[in-house]
Amino acid sequence: MDLWVTEYQTPSLGFSCKVKETLRYEKTEFQELSVVETEQFGKMLLLDGMVQTTEQDEFVYHEMITLVALNSHRNPEKVLIIGGGDGGTLREVVKHPAVSQATLVEIDERVVIASKDFFPDLACAFSEPKAEVLIADGIEYVKQQHQSFDLIIVDSTEPVGPAIQLFSREFYQSVYDALKDDGMLVVQSESPFYNQNVIKMAFGGINQVFPLTKLYLANIPTYPSGLWSFTVGSKLYDPQLPSCSYSQGCKYYTPEIHQAAFQLPAFVSRIIE
Amino acid sequence: MDLWVTEYQTPSLGFSCKVKETLRYEKTEFQELSVVETEQFGKMLLLDGMVQTTEQDEFVYHEMITLVALNSHRNPEKVLIIGGGDGGTLREVVKHPAVSQATLVEIDERVVIASKDFFPDLACAFSEPKAEVLIADGIEYVKQQHQSFDLIIVDSTEPVGPAIQLFSREFYQSVYDALKDDGMLVVQSESPFYNQNVIKMAFGGINQVFPLTKLYLANIPTYPSGLWSFTVGSKLYDPQLPSCSYSQGCKYYTPEIHQAAFQLPAFVSRIIE
Repeated sequence: MDLWVTEYQTPSLGFSCKVKETLRYEKTEFQELSVVETEQFGKMLLLDGMVQTTEQDEFVYHEMITLVALNSHRNPEKVLIIGGGDGGTLREVVKHPAVSQATLVEIDERVVIASKDFFPDLACAFSEPKAEVLIADGIEYVKQQHQSFDLIIVDSTEPVGPAIQLFSREFYQSVYDALKDDGMLVVQSESPFYNQNVIKMAFGGINQVFPLTKLYLANIPTYPSGLWSFTVGSKLYDPQLPSCSYSQGCKYYTPEIHQAAFQLPAFVSRIIE
Repeated sequence: MDLWVTEYQTPSLGFSCKVKETLRYEKTEFQELSVVETEQFGKMLLLDGMVQTTEQDEFVYHEMITLVALNSHRNPEKVLIIGGGDGGTLREVVKHPAVSQATLVEIDERVVIASKDFFPDLACAFSEPKAEVLIADGIEYVKQQHQSFDLIIVDSTEPVGPAIQLFSREFYQSVYDALKDDGMLVVQSESPFYNQNVIKMAFGGINQVFPLTKLYLANIPTYPSGLWSFTVGSKLYDPQLPSCSYSQGCKYYTPEIHQAAFQLPAFVSRIIE
């Protein structure tokens, strides 16, 4: 039997991977969760049918959502991650020498459990002394914080269902208030080819709240179009300028890639004009 | 009826587009040629089942395979294109103010005809005074030339079947001989995620013949992994340094993207080490 999993990246675009084995399928309190072993990308985690991460290409997303901010903030000691229950973002954060404490707030405990069960290279950070893992609503958690964090990373699913609030001006204002005076925010903001409205929403909302807002890009083959954007809001530091060149063990990030990632193709610049 | 076209980008990876209408399907002397109207990307040209170009994203490939060399060569007057029968590369070349003559050598006339019939925005250059279109074997054509061209662009299909010779050291030597003393070669060299052997073959072969060899990248959503590489061999000029900033009407290329495209993710640098 030939088994394939297909993500409909748009209503008229399918991305299909040959599957060796289905490792988990469950309906959690929040979403449909699957783990499959694919031939092309190794183990793959899907939420509501959308690829979240795979063993083969997770390095791009996790290095790029963390190191750009970690290396441009002068002293990113305390870091908060909203979402990111697979642990990959946490792994990169706790590895960074400047970080002393990393808090991960994931709403769906079943994602953390799936990662522990099937993705040892992502889940490795859960047990690190620097790491704290809370199962809670990130939006509510952020509202309770005041000037507590140097860096907040929103490692969310797409802005459908509950995650839509993570792309609102109100949420970005809560994040601003939860950050110290030189704090930074990084959010994943989808594909410049297929999700221009998400980029406008994230960039526009962050830009209303933060004095400095910038977009940067990375190449992730299992995400729609293969080109992915991240939006940074910064109170003080320019995220485009690395002040530290930490990149130990990196397979994607380099100090040169850090700066090149902010050079946008003409059509991408026009999205955020 | 729901009609989809699927390219198997690897044996375990499918890329499927919803099709409104099949516009052409034929077996030419050299390959299977299809033109379909897709919902996501507009009209799409496929050769042997592999996506060659689409109306929506052709601008990336065609700007990036031409302008990096055209803007770093000091005087690219005479340009030769091998393949590229759809005309998109020719369109960008004849638009450039430094070019006085562009010769396109395509082996399969049916590709040129399909472009004229269905892709007016690509085929527009065929009738330009600067353009000359020959239906011939590019490998044989290049062997007859001696120090004739400033720039040679290999806009080929993947290295399977007859196109394999376009990735050989012997071919690169013929190209070298066909170029003037300050000439440049650009070839498309596939995906750094899925086709590392093609990159090694192209880069290694060109590097044996040309004094300066460099790799650069661009984001093309309809090509496997969404990340595509181009390899440049240069006799004199550094292709990474634009000497001219021509980018009129560009949707992807900018002078900043020109330089950023040469900044390689760590795993890509390792392919060509």
